[in-house]
Amino acid sequence: MQYTELKCTEYTEQLSSKAPVPGGGGTAALTGALSASLCSMVGNLTIGKKKYADVEDEIRGLMEKTERLRRELLSLVEADAEAFEPLSKAYGLPKETEEQAEQKARVMEECLKNAAEVPFQIMRKICEVIDLVDTFRKKGSVLAVSDAGVAAALAAAALKSASLNVFINTRLMTDRQKAGEMNKACNDMLSVYIPMAERTFEKVKNKLC
Amino acid sequence: MQYTELKCTEYTEQLSSKAPVPGGGGTAALTGALSASLCSMVGNLTIGKKKYADVEDEIRGLMEKTERLRRELLSLVEADAEAFEPLSKAYGLPKETEEQAEQKARVMEECLKNAAEVPFQIMRKICEVIDLVDTFRKKGSVLAVSDAGVAAALAAAALKSASLNVFINTRLMTDRQKAGEMNKACNDMLSVYIPMAERTFEKVKNKLC
Repeated sequence: MQYTELKCTEYTEQLSSKAPVPGGGGTAALTGALSASLCSMVGNLTIGKKKYADVEDEIRGLMEKTERLRRELLSLVEADAEAFEPLSKAYGLPKETEEQAEQKARVMEECLKNAAEVPFQIMRKICEVIDLVDTFRKKGSVLAVSDAGVAAALAAAALKSASLNVFINTRLMTDRQKAGEMNKACNDMLSVYIPMAERTFEKVKNKLC
Repeated sequence: MQYTELKCTEYTEQLSSKAPVPGGGGTAALTGALSASLCSMVGNLTIGKKKYADVEDEIRGLMEKTERLRRELLSLVEADAEAFEPLSKAYGLPKETEEQAEQKARVMEECLKNAAEVPFQIMRKICEVIDLVDTFRKKGSVLAVSDAGVAAALAAAALKSASLNVFINTRLMTDRQKAGEMNKACNDMLSVYIPMAERTFEKVKNKLC
């Protein structure tokens, strides 16, 4: 099953259901992909225009990155589903005997690490989008400035959303050192990149009204 | 063309292109639909569980609303495209003679009003989602609390995104009274509902780490 091959209508239907996937983690990645796409759209409305000839090469270079990020984030929608399904099954393992309990703990720990790792990767990719979005705002076609603002707002939300999907898994990990390191790395990303994306959004809003 | 009938992959491809639609406004509506869907998902993971039997009726009532909002927001993706296409054509109308200039101004004003009205409606629907999301966080299954947090983050971003698509159209309207009224109503929605959604997100984050 490729969730990103669902129609948008079908994706929202499946998301609404009680099926374990797709869920919040994959949807964070999808929202990141929408943000990267909007960056590419701003780029596509900029290149080939006389007015923007002097930034054309730079914009083309950025668009290669946002197109790559769009694809990577769509792949991470699938990766999140693949990592989450075994975890949702592991929750249901029996733990009546000591042996079963130990086995369940081992499986759970492995599944939790994988289920935390994917949204962590989603965060890193979204930070890459946020690193680029302000240049699209500044140097891209002024006709598409609202799209750059939307890209910034969606990327910030996607980053915050992915972080919750790290935290909900790290909190149950028995390897507290690993959990603490991942949480710290998440909080570092949030504290740098959320304000960055919010500044881009505010600059767009102030330009428009 | 029904944009929400595109596969998620195709939607992001079309969004990346220089085609006028889909754009930031429709994507705000789509993100709102994802948020409403996550609320429904939390609901679906709550109902039928003994632990949550005493909130089941309330949750079912809320889920009817979030399912309706999901559908309405998906329809607004299409409505935004329908309203934006004539505007993108109106920009290209000739204005060489006085008559042409007057005609273009009339057509532009009409198109701008329609193009502002749709994201304004998107904002109203997203405010309805935000009105419900904190109850899903509080009363829904604790296993899905991160999904309620993602719903809140996405709804806030969708609301901010839709507002830019109102502002970019109202700023060019010659009817400054109408433009001012719409802008004020947008800013009122932002000032009430963004903090509301952010509080929900923070409560989820604080619960998880």
